Formats: sequence, structure tokens, C-alpha cells
Amino acid sequence: MTLNVGVIGVGMIGQDHIRRLTDVLSGARVAAVTDVDLDRARTVADDLPGATLHPSGQDLIAAPGVDAVLVTSWGPTHEEYVLACIAAGKQVFCEKPLATTREACQRIVDAEVAAGRRLVMVGFMRRYDARYRAMKEAVTSGDIGAPLLMHASHRNPSVPSFFTSDMIINDSAVHDIDVARWMFDDEIAAVTVLKPRVSSKAAAGFDDPLVVLLEMTSGVLVDVEASVNAAYGYDIRGEVVCEDGTVELSESAGAIVKRAGHFSGRVPADWRERFARAFDTEFQAWIDAVTAGTTTGPSAWDGYAATVVCDAGLAALSSGQRIPVVLGERPDLYKEI
Amino acid sequence: MTLNVGVIGVGMIGQDHIRRLTDVLSGARVAAVTDVDLDRARTVADDLPGATLHPSGQDLIAAPGVDAVLVTSWGPTHEEYVLACIAAGKQVFCEKPLATTREACQRIVDAEVAAGRRLVMVGFMRRYDARYRAMKEAVTSGDIGAPLLMHASHRNPSVPSFFTSDMIINDSAVHDIDVARWMFDDEIAAVTVLKPRVSSKAAAGFDDPLVVLLEMTSGVLVDVEASVNAAYGYDIRGEVVCEDGTVELSESAGAIVKRAGHFSGRVPADWRERFARAFDTEFQAWIDAVTAGTTTGPSAWDGYAATVVCDAGLAALSSGQRIPVVLGERPDLYKEI
Amino acid sequence: MTLNVGVIGVGMIGQDHIRRLTDVLSGARVAAVTDVDLDRARTVADDLPGATLHPSGQDLIAAPGVDAVLVTSWGPTHEEYVLACIAAGKQVFCEKPLATTREACQRIVDAEVAAGRRLVMVGFMRRYDARYRAMKEAVTSGDIGAPLLMHASHRNPSVPSFFTSDMIINDSAVHDIDVARWMFDDEIAAVTVLKPRVSSKAAAGFDDPLVVLLEMTSGVLVDVEASVNAAYGYDIRGEVVCEDGTVELSESAGAIVKRAGHFSGRVPADWRERFARAFDTEFQAWIDAVTAGTTTGPSAWDGYAATVVCDAGLAALSSGQRIPVVLGERPDLYKEI
Amino acid sequence: MTLNVGVIGVGMIGQDHIRRLTDVLSGARVAAVTDVDLDRARTVADDLPGATLHPSGQDLIAAPGVDAVLVTSWGPTHEEYVLACIAAGKQVFCEKPLATTREACQRIVDAEVAAGRRLVMVGFMRRYDARYRAMKEAVTSGDIGAPLLMHASHRNPSVPSFFTSDMIINDSAVHDIDVARWMFDDEIAAVTVLKPRVSSKAAAGFDDPLVVLLEMTSGVLVDVEASVNAAYGYDIRGEVVCEDGTVELSESAGAIVKRAGHFSGRVPADWRERFARAFDTEFQAWIDAVTAGTTTGPSAWDGYAATVVCDAGLAALSSGQRIPVVLGERPDLYKEI
Repeated sequence: MTLNVGVIGVGMIGQDHIRRLTDVLSGARVAAVTDVDLDRARTVADDLPGATLHPSGQDLIAAPGVDAVLVTSWGPTHEEYVLACIAAGKQVFCEKPLATTREACQRIVDAEVAAGRRLVMVGFMRRYDARYRAMKEAVTSGDIGAPLLMHASHRNPSVPSFFTSDMIINDSAVHDIDVARWMFDDEIAAVTVLKPRVSSKAAAGFDDPLVVLLEMTSGVLVDVEASVNAAYGYDIRGEVVCEDGTVELSESAGAIVKRAGHFSGRVPADWRERFARAFDTEFQAWIDAVTAGTTTGPSAWDGYAATVVCDAGLAALSSGQRIPVVLGERPDLYKEI
Repeated sequence: MTLNVGVIGVGMIGQDHIRRLTDVLSGARVAAVTDVDLDRARTVADDLPGATLHPSGQDLIAAPGVDAVLVTSWGPTHEEYVLACIAAGKQVFCEKPLATTREACQRIVDAEVAAGRRLVMVGFMRRYDARYRAMKEAVTSGDIGAPLLMHASHRNPSVPSFFTSDMIINDSAVHDIDVARWMFDDEIAAVTVLKPRVSSKAAAGFDDPLVVLLEMTSGVLVDVEASVNAAYGYDIRGEVVCEDGTVELSESAGAIVKRAGHFSGRVPADWRERFARAFDTEFQAWIDAVTAGTTTGPSAWDGYAATVVCDAGLAALSSGQRIPVVLGERPDLYKEI
Repeated sequence: MTLNVGVIGVGMIGQDHIRRLTDVLSGARVAAVTDVDLDRARTVADDLPGATLHPSGQDLIAAPGVDAVLVTSWGPTHEEYVLACIAAGKQVFCEKPLATTREACQRIVDAEVAAGRRLVMVGFMRRYDARYRAMKEAVTSGDIGAPLLMHASHRNPSVPSFFTSDMIINDSAVHDIDVARWMFDDEIAAVTVLKPRVSSKAAAGFDDPLVVLLEMTSGVLVDVEASVNAAYGYDIRGEVVCEDGTVELSESAGAIVKRAGHFSGRVPADWRERFARAFDTEFQAWIDAVTAGTTTGPSAWDGYAATVVCDAGLAALSSGQRIPVVLGERPDLYKEI
Repeated sequence: MTLNVGVIGVGMIGQDHIRRLTDVLSGARVAAVTDVDLDRARTVADDLPGATLHPSGQDLIAAPGVDAVLVTSWGPTHEEYVLACIAAGKQVFCEKPLATTREACQRIVDAEVAAGRRLVMVGFMRRYDARYRAMKEAVTSGDIGAPLLMHASHRNPSVPSFFTSDMIINDSAVHDIDVARWMFDDEIAAVTVLKPRVSSKAAAGFDDPLVVLLEMTSGVLVDVEASVNAAYGYDIRGEVVCEDGTVELSESAGAIVKRAGHFSGRVPADWRERFARAFDTEFQAWIDAVTAGTTTGPSAWDGYAATVVCDAGLAALSSGQRIPVVLGERPDLYKEI
């Protein structure tokens, strides 16, 4: 009953997920790989006993030995592969973004609705992080009343030179966008982007940090400080303020050292350190669900909504205005949580 | 060498300061009292050996046995008493606000400038809180680089029924306004007020919580969540985000209890519990300075600026717009810190 | 390359490990089961596709389809099964205790030494806990100097009615005994047991809590508060005091809630909640090592030493005296870490 | 109604208390000073307007202008001055130790009992520390059940070269001895001293750290790690373990800084930083009580008991044995708390 997974895209994240499927998790194996760089795909396949190499994602999806598909290729290619999986009736785990345009996401949603069942899970791994889950549990327990605000910080220590302010929205804040929708089980109604003082560490012409304001349809206001030159570490923080109390993510240091006049604890160095366990949990949930003949987790609708909100965020960033978010109607397929 | 202090206004806050001068601090005594309610003033005076009762603030200020004056009367009366103190050449400690209008504050500044020396200290006690001082020390140490943002929360557990949204700005957020100016040694350039989902605990027609955005002239952005129906306690939080690191206020619980599946620590019940020590430190600093023939602490200019920013905040609250703050020129008298 | 694991003993802990091997970890499957209660074994086997049922541990160990063995049977039976595994040249993971008497442990050590290679891993899972690993990393980093003391608390919320003071040593403190040996890479030279005030929650005639003092051969002193009626939760604490600083385990709460005048975080309810992840990591390390043709982790020597120290602890508990620990000579097989 | 205090002994601690009485607290002034070094006393007196200089402690005590006395001279002289104060019917605040021998303390107790009222307060300032008070409040609240154990650490960063192991008992652990008696409202029945590995920072022939075990008559066991070469800071820690929960002192850092991969907070540099506020509170309580015609705080009995327990501690240190503590009968005068 081992799940045979085909992997499309074996770059850094793809290889990390292959390691996870192969060495860490239960119930799955990598049965097939492909990549736009076939030599790279061949090198990866050579290390995976029994894995087949495929000339294209379409070929891999069609292969009878592939039970389910993992899409970790370049964002603009996601739509094609996800649609092919739906057409083939195969479960697919697609790393974020589901697709890079609102229209592409809509086509995926439409295809899945036409198929009549969920086949797509999108890789928003924070939903599987123990800290975020404890936070959501507090919010939904009713112990602290109805939510009013959320404060979040998303700090990357540094980024490659090609990183732009747009990517702060699309690559960083997109996680906070998904968290907000999931935490409050609600859609985002409008986005505004504020520009604080620019860090001297930011590349020329680059606005960093940003403050992204998300207005939920309920009126809950979420402010997200997103920065990619935070220098001191990878620090993800959050606090939900409710009518009777608040809940915030705890620090993650495993030990507290006292030395030289101070007590101190480690801040994670990067997203791998911070979210390694969440990735494991997320993938195991997918393997278990797919093996059981179903799917789970963030849906194509969640991927669609995230992309639409990011588009609004980019418009807000460039215009300086508050940009309303206009979503299509949510199909029945996605109405149950 | 005991400083003889005259107290104008013996309501709740006035009586608390009288207790402080009488029972807690060194080097001062209450020598004279007055109040709009003379009976109340008489009752207070009767408990203070040697204290004289005065029919009016003006009479008290003029009394030869009064070395310095404490103004804790109703806000709209502050201007008159502070101006009289300046005219009399007597040091005055005025509880916030310095005065209730921009014009009144300007008249005080003008009078003090004409006097050629500082005679006014305004009661922004957070500058004397050990946690805020540790935060400022970290910011000014250079260890964490140039400041970019500040996040603040100002949560009151509840308020009397007469409290309004305007008072969230004037009575609560005014402290955060002063903190921002002091923390960054900079003026506020613009104010915006956001309205999250309204708490069901808020009185009808009352916007609570608010998020007040302060833009410093340097570009540093300060977001202040201000709420007066936070229910769970009096919670004052702050984090300054700089280029190389951050600094945040610590929790204030003295002991951590483990019980019934949880560890827990106390949140202060009210501002007295949270800032009792800051009030002591603030007043002792004033007594010491006045005894030494000078003054210290927040100046008339700080009082003026706070009132002008609050005015902008009220305009921002009612209009929903970003309101620029236009200050007059800062006189030389206030240029040294 | 899936490792076929035979499981001897399918009680609570055995079934938990079967779940782990089957549903959580990578690279292993349960290929065979047995139990003193064959009906129970049959029920378990029926849920494991392809698993064979064996009438005895010896039969299971001899089965050609079993690559490696997991011993989770009743402690007094461990010796027999571990010796059989060594005789069969099969890797064995034995839950603590390795064996219930010093002599039995010695026989296992002798057999393994005679075999000339390590075949035994003992289940001291704390060595795989992220918090303990961070602590050990700090101690061995040299940043805080040479170790002088360790303070530990081992608190169980409650225990079944058959639990005795002896079991506080053998079942609870045995983990702290192993941690001390591992943390300082040193043996324990003497044990003393102190009896504080007896908890009213303890069963009649039962000493609880105890303080177990462990003297390392280096002189480092370890004090372990062990209690099994701590009521409020399962709380494992530790602090190592070194010449230049200290290191302590952090709290494990994922989120901090503020409510009703307090901030609070969750204390784990039991050892499963606290150490679930450590068990996973421990087992995966074993699977990976065995698959690679070797073993890892706590050795038969560690199991032997723990049993000898526990014996000293029991003598110390009953006599009220300081009891020296006399270990045999450590064979070369166990000299490398 | 200012209290005129005479100060005997104007060394470091005496001058610090003079500063406190003069510049910080309310209701008292230094009216008279003396010291074994009269030149030093004269220099101090010259800075205190209106203070008289006295050739001896006895002369100062007898002076009509002295309402109450502060004894901060060398320990062996305390008995003489405290007895003289009792004879003169003047309230006296005596820094610890009350006296350096059991017999001397007994004579003070006898004299005070003969006088028929409390005249002596001993300077155990931890009883006035906000953290210890929060801890005691939790213990006495009943919320966490009956106490069973207390863990304490008392770490000094470094000591002068003349410091000895005996002084770890008499100068450092004496505070923990008083805390234990006060926390549990109970006497100490026996003392044992353990010697962990010796720090390489300790002077030759010097045992440091020590672990002092205090057995309360109730059976509560208190373990105190006392070290005077802890290097990293002045760190005072404590945890009381009760039947239903625990309570521990919180960290004292005012702000948490994140920088260079870590979050961190300040550990106090010395006892002044850690207990400055406790000293203020303690002294103000004394001034207020004396002004009201009574006294308060740690009594001569507390001073007596601390000295007797220290004697047992020294015997335990030198003998390696458990030493019972034998107190005389507690006079009625000290029976109410």
C-alpha cells in the first residue's frame, strides 16, 4: 500500500520534499521524476531505486506507475500540471502558488469542480505548524471571545539579490494571507500596503520592510510586518486579539543559556529550521489522505484566493491605495471546511 | 531643604500624587491645596499637617509658602494655572494634557520661552518606566541598528460609560504618542486611524479597538492598537524593529505559577499596578530637579506636540483620512534633550 | 530496502511503536508479532498486512523474514530475547530496562562483546528530544565552561495504584540517570535519596516526592526531584550549571494565551505529549542505522549502567545512606561514543 | 513628624542606606552618624545638613535628637549597639547578622522580651522583594496546595579574594535561610551541606559551589545552590513545589532584545541592581512603622534563628554530616506573625 509519487521539478524545494518522502515519512515512495533540466532530473532519479525518469510533466502524470503527483516546478508551470492531474483523476500536491494568475487559478478551480471531487492540495505548511495550530485552537475554543485583530511579523534574515518588493507580497506575505483566511475561516475583503522607513540593507529602489493590512469580511484587521532583510534571524510572530483575551505564538528556542550578563535563546536561522516539522506533518497528512482515497488541507480555492489577494496586494503596493478584493463565488465543493 | 508643593486639584489622581509626596518620596511635602470643590480640598488639607487651604489655584500659586506647584485639576483649567506659575516664576508639574487645545499649549510655550527658562514638566510617566527605559537604551545603544518600525498595544480592561472613541486618542493613545516621540527623538509627521471590527463590549456607537498609525519624520512607522475594553487586564506592549534586531517590553509578572495543566503569570489589573513605580520615579526626578533649581522630563514642547498630534488623530478618526501633523517651529529652549 | 521488524510484546507501548513504524516513520514495516497473550498478538497482526504471528519470541527472532527485532515485552523477559537476538546476529531495539538485574545486563554485555559488534540499542528516548539536545549542545560547546551541577525535576501528574516508591527510581528517575551519564559523558559514582515531606496524594506508605542525588565521577552533582503525583501536568525540567554560565530546558507551550488577568501556556499532559517527537526521532535513527548495517544510540553498556545505578538508588532509598556505584570495567566495544 | 535616624557605621552599606534615607524615602532624615573610623564619619556628616557627629555608638544612641537607630557597623559590634538601643527604648534597624554568635543573639532576644515589646528589625530585604512576595502569595493562597520542596539558587558573579566557604553560608545562604523560614512560616530542623565539583574560578582550598539542604520541621526540603563565582551575573532563583502546583521567581529583564540569531535579556550585575527596590521598600516599611510607634519585619527571633541555622550550616560544611538545628523556645513576643 505504498503510495507511488511522481515529482515534477527537482530544484531545491523538490529535492527537499523527495528526501522527506524517501527518508522521513511513512507510506510513500518517489516513483517517477522529471524536471525542465533533464540532466538534473536524471541525477536525482539515479539516487532513487526504482524511480523512472520522464521527459515531461505530462508524460510523468500519464505514467501508470504514478499514483499521485507532487508539483514543485517553477510557478508559471503549475497550472498546466495541475490541470493535467485533474484530467487524469490523480491527486496532486502543488507547492504555492497554485498558479501565478487569477485566471489560471480559476481554470483549476473550474476543472476540479467539473471533476466533482477535490484532487488538489496546495502547500501552505503553516496550517500544520504546532504553534499556529495551538493558536487556532485557542481562537476557536471560544475561551477568549470573538477575534478583533491579528498582528503578525514575517522576517527573513536576508534574500538573494534578485528579490523585489513584489516578492515580499507574493513569496513571503502570501503565507500570512493564507494564515489569516484559515485562522478566521473568512475571506479577505481589502488590502493596503504601508511603507515604513526603508532598511539600509534593502537593495536600491526596493521597499523593505512593508506593512500589509488585510481586512477580513468580518471586520477583523490583520497587520503583517513583512521584511526580508531582518538580519538577526528568521522570525515568524503572530498575535490574535479577541474580545476576552489574546493568543500569541511562543518562541521556539529549545534551551535557554545564561552567559555574560544575559539569558538567551536561539531564533531560527531560516524557514527550514522553523518549519521543518510542519512540512513533515503536512506531507504525511497528504499521503495518509491520498492513500485513503481522498485529499485534505488547503484546497484549490485557497490557492485561488491567495493569488487574488496577492494581486490586490501588488496593486496596493504600487498605488498606495486600499484595494478591495473581489473573489468569485465559492463553489459548493469548497464550502465544507 | 524640603520642597513645599502646592496641589491644584485633589481628585483621584491628585490624591494619589499627594500620597506619593507625603508617604513615599523624599524631599517634598504638600504645603497647600485647592480644588474646584473646596469642601473636598478642605477634607484633604485636614489630613495634611501644616498644609494651607486656598480658595483658588491663583491664590495658591501666589502663596509665599508654596515653592512649586502640581496641577492635577480638570484638563481645560491647566492652561490658566500653568501660565500663572510661569508668570510667578514657579516650577510646575502638570498632569497630561498640558492643555486641551493647540492654541493653549502654544501660549504656554510662548510664555515659557519669554521667561527664558524651563518651568514646566508634563506628566508622561512612561518615560520613567524601567521597561521602557531598557527598550530605549537598546534602541539608542546602536546594537540593533537604525529603527524602522514600532508596534504597540495599549489595552485597558474596561472604562466608565462616559468614555468615547475620542478619549481613546486623547486619554490612552496620547501616552503612545509621547513614547514614540521620546523613543526616536523625532516628531510625528502624520496620523491615520484604522477601525478594526468593533468589540461587542464597546458602548453603542463607539469604535473600539482602534489602530493609530503614526509616521515619524524619519519614516519610522508606529502602529498602536488602542482598546479600552480588553477585559483580561491592563496590558501595555511594545516592540521596536531596527535594522539589525528588535527590542520588546518584557512581561511584568513577578512569579510564574504552574497549576491545572498550565504555567501562568499575572497581567496587571490597571495602570496603577503597571506604572506605580514609574510615577514614583517621575516625581522624585521632578522634586530633585526643582530642589536643585532646574527642571527635567517632558517639556511644554512635548505637551504641545502631544496635543497637536492628538488633534490630528481626532481628525483622522472622524475623517478616515491620513492627517499630516503641522507643528510650529521648535524654540531653542527645547532643542537640547 | 524496507526493514522488516519483528515486535515482541504488543501491550500499550508495543502498539504505540507499531503505529510509529507503520504510520509515521520511513523505511520499516512490522513483519512479525508475538506476545505472551497470543490472542492479543493475533488481533494486532490482523491489522498489519503481511505480518506473521509467532508463538514465541524465540520463534519470531529465528524467522527468516525478520530483519531486526523490537522488544517491548515485560521487563523480566528482556534478557532472554535480547540474548537470542545477539545469538542470531540480529539488531534489537530494547525498551528500557535492558534487563531487570545487574547480572542479566552483564550477560547481555558479555554476549555482545563476544559477538564483536554492537547489536543492541536501548530505548532512552530523551537523548533524541530537541530540548535536551539543545542543552547538551550548549554544554559541549564550551561556551559556558566546565559543568558543576545539574538540577532536574521529573514530575508525573499521577500514577496507577500499583505504583511504588521503588518504581519512582526504576521507572521515572532511570531516565534522569541516563540523561546525566549522556549529558556529561561520565559515569555515576554514588547515589543518595532524600525524602522531602510526603505528598498527601501519595498512596499510603509511599514516599513521594523523592530527591535523588547523583554524584558523577567528575564530581558534578545532579539533583533530581522525582514525583509521580504532581497533579498539574507532566513536567520535565533541567538546568546544567557550568563555570561560565548555565543552560536550561525551555517551556514547551506552543502558544501563550492571555485571559482573565493572566498569561498562560500549556504544560504537557503526559509523556506521550512531551516526548512523542523524541520517540519518532529515536526510532528513525535506529531504522536508518540498522538499514545501513550498523546500530546507534544508547548501548547495552548504557542499559547495564542504568540498571546498576538504579540498584544503588533502591539501596539508598531503603537505607537512607549514600550508596557507591560499582561498575565493572567498560569493554572496548563501548569506549567510542 | 520626620523621623530622626542615627547611623552607626558608614561603610559601603551604611552610606547606601544614608543615601536611601536622604534622597529616596519619605519621612526620615539622618540626624546623627558615627563610625569606628571617625574621620570617615565626619566626612559623611559634613554632607548631611543638621547631622551631628558622635564619638561612639553608645553616645549616638543616647543622644536626645536621635529617634531611632540604624546599625550598619561590623557584625561583631552589632550586639552591643542593639542591646543599647533596647536599653534606651529606641527602635533599631540592624543589618544582618543580628549578632555573630548564638549566645549574643539570645541576649538580644532576652533583652527585648524583658522590654516587653519589639524594638528590633533585622535587614533581611528579600521579604520585601516583589518577586518573592508574589511567590509567597501563591504559596499561601492555597491555590497550589501544601508545600513539599523548594529549589533555590544564589549565584554571585565573583567575590573578593578574602571570601571563604564559610562566608558562602554566613553571607550568602543566610538570605535563603531566612527566605525558607519566612516562606513556610516554619523553623529549620536540620542542615546538610553538599560539595559538588569545585569551580576552577574558586580560590585555592575553597569549596564553591555548595548545595545547602535545609529540612523544615514540616518535612519540606529546601535545596540551595550557593555559588560566589558564577561569572555570568547575579542570579537569584527559586521554585516552591506544592501538592497541586509550583511557583517560581520570574526573570527580571525589562526588555528582550533580538539580535544575531538570539533573543536575550539582561541578568542583574549585582545585588544592588537586583534588590535596590526591595531595600527601598524594606526601609520605608521600617520608617512608617517606627513613626507609628511600632516596628515590623524580621524580628530579633528571626535574626537569632538565622544565626543558629548558620552555625549548623558551618558544622555541616566542616563535618560533612547532617546537623540538627536546636532552637530555644520561641518567646510569646514573637509568636504572632
